[in-house]
Amino acid sequence: MCRWLAYSGSPILLEELLVKRDRSLIDQSLHSRQGATTTNGDGFGVGWYDDSGAPRLYRSTHPAWNDRNLRELAAGISSPLFFAHIRASTGTAIQETNTHPFRHGRWLWMHNGLIREFPRLRRELLVAVDDALFPSVEGTTDSEAMFYLALTFGLEDDPVAAVERMVGFVETAGHAHGVEHPIQMTVATTDGRSIWAFRYSSEGASRSLYFSTRMDALQALYPESAELAGLGEETRVVVSEPLGDLVGAWNEVPESHVGIVRPGSDELRPFAPAP
Amino acid sequence: MCRWLAYSGSPILLEELLVKRDRSLIDQSLHSRQGATTTNGDGFGVGWYDDSGAPRLYRSTHPAWNDRNLRELAAGISSPLFFAHIRASTGTAIQETNTHPFRHGRWLWMHNGLIREFPRLRRELLVAVDDALFPSVEGTTDSEAMFYLALTFGLEDDPVAAVERMVGFVETAGHAHGVEHPIQMTVATTDGRSIWAFRYSSEGASRSLYFSTRMDALQALYPESAELAGLGEETRVVVSEPLGDLVGAWNEVPESHVGIVRPGSDELRPFAPAP
Amino acid sequence: MCRWLAYSGSPILLEELLVKRDRSLIDQSLHSRQGATTTNGDGFGVGWYDDSGAPRLYRSTHPAWNDRNLRELAAGISSPLFFAHIRASTGTAIQETNTHPFRHGRWLWMHNGLIREFPRLRRELLVAVDDALFPSVEGTTDSEAMFYLALTFGLEDDPVAAVERMVGFVETAGHAHGVEHPIQMTVATTDGRSIWAFRYSSEGASRSLYFSTRMDALQALYPESAELAGLGEETRVVVSEPLGDLVGAWNEVPESHVGIVRPGSDELRPFAPAP
Amino acid sequence: MCRWLAYSGSPILLEELLVKRDRSLIDQSLHSRQGATTTNGDGFGVGWYDDSGAPRLYRSTHPAWNDRNLRELAAGISSPLFFAHIRASTGTAIQETNTHPFRHGRWLWMHNGLIREFPRLRRELLVAVDDALFPSVEGTTDSEAMFYLALTFGLEDDPVAAVERMVGFVETAGHAHGVEHPIQMTVATTDGRSIWAFRYSSEGASRSLYFSTRMDALQALYPESAELAGLGEETRVVVSEPLGDLVGAWNEVPESHVGIVRPGSDELRPFAPAP
Repeated sequence: MCRWLAYSGSPILLEELLVKRDRSLIDQSLHSRQGATTTNGDGFGVGWYDDSGAPRLYRSTHPAWNDRNLRELAAGISSPLFFAHIRASTGTAIQETNTHPFRHGRWLWMHNGLIREFPRLRRELLVAVDDALFPSVEGTTDSEAMFYLALTFGLEDDPVAAVERMVGFVETAGHAHGVEHPIQMTVATTDGRSIWAFRYSSEGASRSLYFSTRMDALQALYPESAELAGLGEETRVVVSEPLGDLVGAWNEVPESHVGIVRPGSDELRPFAPAP
Repeated sequence: MCRWLAYSGSPILLEELLVKRDRSLIDQSLHSRQGATTTNGDGFGVGWYDDSGAPRLYRSTHPAWNDRNLRELAAGISSPLFFAHIRASTGTAIQETNTHPFRHGRWLWMHNGLIREFPRLRRELLVAVDDALFPSVEGTTDSEAMFYLALTFGLEDDPVAAVERMVGFVETAGHAHGVEHPIQMTVATTDGRSIWAFRYSSEGASRSLYFSTRMDALQALYPESAELAGLGEETRVVVSEPLGDLVGAWNEVPESHVGIVRPGSDELRPFAPAP
Repeated sequence: MCRWLAYSGSPILLEELLVKRDRSLIDQSLHSRQGATTTNGDGFGVGWYDDSGAPRLYRSTHPAWNDRNLRELAAGISSPLFFAHIRASTGTAIQETNTHPFRHGRWLWMHNGLIREFPRLRRELLVAVDDALFPSVEGTTDSEAMFYLALTFGLEDDPVAAVERMVGFVETAGHAHGVEHPIQMTVATTDGRSIWAFRYSSEGASRSLYFSTRMDALQALYPESAELAGLGEETRVVVSEPLGDLVGAWNEVPESHVGIVRPGSDELRPFAPAP
Repeated sequence: MCRWLAYSGSPILLEELLVKRDRSLIDQSLHSRQGATTTNGDGFGVGWYDDSGAPRLYRSTHPAWNDRNLRELAAGISSPLFFAHIRASTGTAIQETNTHPFRHGRWLWMHNGLIREFPRLRRELLVAVDDALFPSVEGTTDSEAMFYLALTFGLEDDPVAAVERMVGFVETAGHAHGVEHPIQMTVATTDGRSIWAFRYSSEGASRSLYFSTRMDALQALYPESAELAGLGEETRVVVSEPLGDLVGAWNEVPESHVGIVRPGSDELRPFAPAP
């Protein structure tokens, strides 16, 4: 339904991954190969951490491929950690407040997938959002509801546990309403230092999700590559669909797993909803 | 905060009241005289009943004064009953789903004013919306919440009683949260045949609201006026601020009253929140 | 590059052809089969003649498939003659003034194709536009320049001759700048009564163009069809790509031809640029 | 008709002047005191030089006061030299390509005022634009035409002489068409190092224009001011209307003068159109 990209590592201009690459994210907005829809033209968003470490957003309801401001910003802004998302609506309105990434405090969140029968479940899910957080819910998407439920369940303290509880909560609510497979998701969230990327679906057939290989491994494999040479060894990209065709550059995240990108050693571990 | 206009009577081109008049609604979007803000540039909407009697909407986040499509439509569409609204946001996002008029089935709703401390009250108000109606709430404004509460309380069967209950409910919720004067409103709603226009505020100092004088009275007063001559005697306009400067053309709706425009005799009666 | 549709006949709701049909124009905006691009998401426009016979426009820079106002208008407006166009930009800016149909007086114009090397030719083409017409050029597309050249060459008096001169002029200018095949076009224009539809390209390999079969022939072929029964026998649709899969419903316009739809007998004749 | 601001000096966050100040530029978009119109809601633009020294643009057709992306960018981007402009259209379309600042190569340009009877003069002015520059003209404003004429007349080599010739050319063309006072302008242009700010009108009654006093003078006057203390002594702001109410902070540029802000000593000198 959507496509997204998360970057962490040596500061680079956003355009390197959003615009320039063959099969860049903008290219995917017109011609996705692995997405559920081939066109992702219902708005887009970019979230990045600026020089002060604060998260900033640029979100628009126009298609990414014809937004001039996006190209300007992507050429002028560099960041060590950013998220980008192109949207194909599953029915909710095309408006900035429905556009990913969502932000709360230092946290960003973006999602590809859906909560099935969300209009019927929405009220029950929203009622479970913490009182103090509720006024911050601005849009009407399932994705934003998932974010605020995860925040309610402690995202800022223990992201994996909070997302496990969120997914468990959605599945319980869905089953209570007779929805067989309530959730389908690849989700990325960050506090500006680490990135957590989840791949899960109730039916066990989740949308695709890829991590880039470690840069030192890639650099050993392609010693002549100028574009790889400049990137620090801990640089990582997580994507819903691979960028470019470099053999050996991408590892698929297995079904029902969460990957954690952080300073030091990354981690990949099984993910299961909490009851 | 906003300005609005409701028309009922002989079918006329929308542009007659939205564009052409001195102090037309578009003129008011730039230079309101009686509004709480002088500029109403945060989007606008028009709702009209088409030849089949179905309500249609055109809503945009651009200022009314520079929207070319609005001028085209206003010049090409005529209707016996239409609503128009220009918005000055009190804080919620500028997006079509926050733009008046709101529609549900055959009903339209628009509002000038606010629920004070709405972010703190919003959750409690939304939870009271009927289960079957909840999925239709698309935006995040106080105005739309008021509409769905009124629908929950029976707007389609007894509009005055439903709005009385809605206002009583909001005041009770507000008082419980320590808000002294929870609501300020002029509201118009219609089923395509009658128009109900409410003027009320918790503090007894409501925004302005005017009914046009009956056309037969106006026509007797100004027998030479070509523009009045063409309009049926039951034609009425309800506005938050008078259009034009015709002496004797406008009656102010008194504080805490509701006016009803309908085939046959119109009615003006006191309005009080229901406990 | 784009897709378009022209309708003439019994007044119908715009949504019948823009929204409802399998392979409606909105459907083609996401998944064109015969277009040079599969996605036509760079804005759209609708032009129709209202009850007074005046041409009205609704144009937007958003993709047609997610524009709510388009669905509202298409459901509420019926017309005996309308144009609709979905755009895939060939490089010029995404803005309403670059969106088809273009209008001048009673005339509408829309185009699929391009003038090759237009940035280099633009100045020479614009300079040839009549002095009185020049101030009305609002955008920067090749398509609008073609319209104003055709107007300069007498479109309002003899449309076929004027378009022949316009194409001849563009080819001469192109050749002078070393452009081998200067123009590629399917063009529709109307004065509100007749429609002229041109298929031509310098290289003799023009984009596709189809006329619907006469309704009386179709009705004889499909006597049980309710949707065909309601349409007058002279109803015709001209499209860059067929709508729906009714066998025998569409005739391809041959290379280098112009078709004329008008009260009485339609006409199809060869088209050649005038020197 | 518009309001603008040019900043040169110590790198600061754009929001310092666009958002935070009392009478910031965003505040002026709603409530201009000295502008020809009180509301400047027909789009806005920001141009800044990024870390690599390249000029970047963010332009939008929405009112500056309700554009969330503008607030995000202004909070996240700092620059030693930037332009900002809020527009009140004098008739040309509301679209990004008509929004200031305009850019060519390293140069930015913005304008408050108008060429009178521009629709009648436009063709003659455009024809005078250099062949190589013509394809870069994207919009339809008088302001952009002035920029490309100035570029044609050597803006990049000698800005003052080029603007003198541009103004002379426009006046000659205007007089030939019977326009008594063809031009009214305050214009700012920059190459990323110096800023040239012009105040001129054919009738000798130009729109207002102000330079901030040198920071070292201001700092001596207000030794306790924290916000002034942080700014380098060469920091300067040029504005169409003063920001804030600091006594002694602003010098009005005299009628028919050009001010030059640059490293070393600034300069203020008379300006006269070249024949």
